[in-house]
Amino acid sequence: MISKDELNRYQREALEIFGRTHIVVTPAEVEQIEIADFGLGQFEQTGLGVLVYVNTQRCCAKELAMWPRQTCPEHLHPNVGDELGKEETFRCRWGKVFLYLLGETTKTPQCKPPAGRENTYSVWHEVELGPGDQYTLKPETLHWFQAGDEGAVVSEFSTRSRDESDIFTDEEIARAARIE
Amino acid sequence: MISKDELNRYQREALEIFGRTHIVVTPAEVEQIEIADFGLGQFEQTGLGVLVYVNTQRCCAKELAMWPRQTCPEHLHPNVGDELGKEETFRCRWGKVFLYLLGETTKTPQCKPPAGRENTYSVWHEVELGPGDQYTLKPETLHWFQAGDEGAVVSEFSTRSRDESDIFTDEEIARAARIE
Repeated sequence: MISKDELNRYQREALEIFGRTHIVVTPAEVEQIEIADFGLGQFEQTGLGVLVYVNTQRCCAKELAMWPRQTCPEHLHPNVGDELGKEETFRCRWGKVFLYLLGETTKTPQCKPPAGRENTYSVWHEVELGPGDQYTLKPETLHWFQAGDEGAVVSEFSTRSRDESDIFTDEEIARAARIE
Repeated sequence: MISKDELNRYQREALEIFGRTHIVVTPAEVEQIEIADFGLGQFEQTGLGVLVYVNTQRCCAKELAMWPRQTCPEHLHPNVGDELGKEETFRCRWGKVFLYLLGETTKTPQCKPPAGRENTYSVWHEVELGPGDQYTLKPETLHWFQAGDEGAVVSEFSTRSRDESDIFTDEEIARAARIE
């Protein structure tokens, strides 16, 4: 549960993080930055600051602000009925982000899952993204990611975003951050 | 027709234009920047520098570099068979861009079409975009746009990009810039 005060504080901090890339964010957009704690109430450990530029029936673009070592928890975007699941490309703009996918396990990964939730992380093929690096994920691909020691700014280009259909490995996660 | 030397020069200039937003472009990407002159051979008047981040069957993201007063000529993205035409969102990152659409004619527009091609511009509803402003276009919407006096950087988020199906008002325009 994120209080209104926390929401405002984290939105300002997200703006600061975005500022490291010199991205222009309008005052109206600052108030729309989503502070997603995935229902766990430990935003700086498990969470994302999300600025949605556009999300139509067909395509979506977002800017993600990540606090130092913050994790977006393991999940996938399923096909729903006839509709293919979300396809997404992550492009690192600033800082560093470590993406974990199904595939050959990286022997000495550079990240640890958030403390106490280790058993909800199962894929360990690491892809390291620095500024200008990007990676495209097909639907139904299990993945999670964590920012480096300084945090990160990541652009996400994708098909329609329907967070409510995402499937998380951690059953305690409810996608929508509840606001008091 | 753009020569190899011109291509290299314009790619370097595009990198400079992108640099005004502090966007990180990798060395490999610089060589992939498309210098699109729409076949007219007057790139600085009618053209675009295009860095394609991703273009799959389902979605696409690009960065556009625009030289001062450079114009992307009037066109639309048609539905093809069962498939809806391209939907696109333009977000201005730096400089200024003037978008022209079907709709109420703007009495004192801030742009003039490229000299000698005035009769290939027919829509005059002006939308002015500064840094942080954006506009979403549905398929089959006739449009053109021109950068302001300093040029512009514009992010384009869209569905699949299939330039070959674009319909231009100017019949002389061949979309693919031919490289000697």
